[in-house]
Amino acid sequence: MNQERILLAHGAGGRMMGELIERVFLSRFSGAGARLGDDSATLPAAGPVAFTTDAYVVDPLFFPGGDVGRLAVCGTVNDLATAGAVAEWLSASFVLEEGLEISVLERVAESMAAAAKEAGVSIVTGDTKVVPRGAADKMFVATAGVGRLLRPRPITGAGARAGDVVLINGPVGDHGIAVLSKREGLAFESDIASDCAPLGRLAAAAVQAGDVHAMRDPTRGGLASALNDLAVQSGVCIEIDEAAIPVRDAVKSACEMLGFDVLHVANEGKMVVITAAADEEKVLQAMKAAPHGQESRVIGRVLAAPPGQVRLRTAHGTTRLVDKPAGELLPRIC
Amino acid sequence: MNQERILLAHGAGGRMMGELIERVFLSRFSGAGARLGDDSATLPAAGPVAFTTDAYVVDPLFFPGGDVGRLAVCGTVNDLATAGAVAEWLSASFVLEEGLEISVLERVAESMAAAAKEAGVSIVTGDTKVVPRGAADKMFVATAGVGRLLRPRPITGAGARAGDVVLINGPVGDHGIAVLSKREGLAFESDIASDCAPLGRLAAAAVQAGDVHAMRDPTRGGLASALNDLAVQSGVCIEIDEAAIPVRDAVKSACEMLGFDVLHVANEGKMVVITAAADEEKVLQAMKAAPHGQESRVIGRVLAAPPGQVRLRTAHGTTRLVDKPAGELLPRIC
Repeated sequence: MNQERILLAHGAGGRMMGELIERVFLSRFSGAGARLGDDSATLPAAGPVAFTTDAYVVDPLFFPGGDVGRLAVCGTVNDLATAGAVAEWLSASFVLEEGLEISVLERVAESMAAAAKEAGVSIVTGDTKVVPRGAADKMFVATAGVGRLLRPRPITGAGARAGDVVLINGPVGDHGIAVLSKREGLAFESDIASDCAPLGRLAAAAVQAGDVHAMRDPTRGGLASALNDLAVQSGVCIEIDEAAIPVRDAVKSACEMLGFDVLHVANEGKMVVITAAADEEKVLQAMKAAPHGQESRVIGRVLAAPPGQVRLRTAHGTTRLVDKPAGELLPRIC
Repeated sequence: MNQERILLAHGAGGRMMGELIERVFLSRFSGAGARLGDDSATLPAAGPVAFTTDAYVVDPLFFPGGDVGRLAVCGTVNDLATAGAVAEWLSASFVLEEGLEISVLERVAESMAAAAKEAGVSIVTGDTKVVPRGAADKMFVATAGVGRLLRPRPITGAGARAGDVVLINGPVGDHGIAVLSKREGLAFESDIASDCAPLGRLAAAAVQAGDVHAMRDPTRGGLASALNDLAVQSGVCIEIDEAAIPVRDAVKSACEMLGFDVLHVANEGKMVVITAAADEEKVLQAMKAAPHGQESRVIGRVLAAPPGQVRLRTAHGTTRLVDKPAGELLPRIC
């Protein structure tokens, strides 16, 4: 039973594919719209919606704090959350390598179902393809999501204004270091777990508490990339305080050992929230009270100039530019 | 220039990724909602929508009549069409193998843009991941689509009723044989092109012309799988006439040579339409007048029993059961 494996026939559109989908997916993704047989789901949207997609190619498939399935649900939920949208419906498409153990696929599906439940979202439609051994590495998952906008207009990365404050909901770098540790069998493997989590409720709490101008989840490329994107899109300078940015000791040590800038390391359960200064306290308290928000804090502020720049005020009182990573830090981190 | 290749850094969330996305995708997918920087698009939906997804792993990437990009757009448009929905917005996520020539990615993006234009759909959001050499075979594309329902309730596979007629918009088997020929370098390569095409307008024309009870695009698993699914979902028997099913001579010869049942061979530009007998002529004429519908014809009828069965009435007047392919006919056909 445990040794059953994915065969090419499981992707061929015939009986075996139907049986696999029924056994692995439909039994778990029994959301409102999940139906056997039809190629699409009907969503009872009542107005403008937000729409996003992401592919997940993380290696290894399972790591401390998460797996490719949890990642695929949370990542798409969080991309919608950054727009001020509450994820309601997800699609999931799978590229499977011939020979993959079906029990592995079942574990991933189980994890997706649990993450979807946690996030309050339904997985309503999907697809499965199988490629011959060697044409893919075990499993890739792509999810797309549709969400309801909390405000008539989406929150974009272009809304930050001089005078705003920058908040984050907890320590950075956990996800990247957790995946790398597991993959490479590094000593700190057991000390660090991915922060992978659905942040829809946290983002909604912030948006409902005050005048949120921009949000972004700092995934690939880390906090540095997210802030640089926001600074460019909004045409502002973002200044963050090194001392205010939470980093776990184990992550700090790992980054020092590996020569990484923790600001470049991926997160999967963090949200940068930029809000009007007048609403700082209301938004901060709302975030702290929300799931995955207990460690929220202010980490910086928005300045008028120079536009497109991110600066770090160090513990020594100096400032340095924070750039995006130019190249590759950690392949297959998400 | 032609020799530029995808590097791991192109998927790392940093500057190189932004540059690649801008150069390859944003310059081509400049649909209504395509924006640089944000992780989602906003769709001006005004009511219930249909939602679907598919992953595309076809090998080779380019084949007579199409490529992975055209396939990824048409396949998702067609899945929405089967529900009686007009595709309006697509997402696209890419898994790229390190070392892929950027010019190949550009050709695929160009083809997606052309197919999207043909289908009247906008590609509004996307994602790009890069995996190390050997972890994927060149390129996989997953698309998701959101469409407007033509009727308040979607058309499902469960709507066929005894007495209905079964129509199709042209010859079957072209796509599967075209891809296989190209991949294996078979002699009939030049004679057969994929039928890959967006069928939104054809399906809409049928739905607007008469009382359409069910539709299905016969892709993987061919006409046999599509009809079996419809028969099971609707709890009816479907009987088709061998003499009425159009098959090109070159496809017929190829199937004979390869030992394939043409009813099991994939299509990417065909739609099975099941309609009330009273509307047969109106629906047939509407299909014939629509894009990709010139060769439409009636191929069979729906009977009350035995439920879940598909029967073929042969040229000799006998009948045989038509089953789904149990296993694998053609891997990586779409």
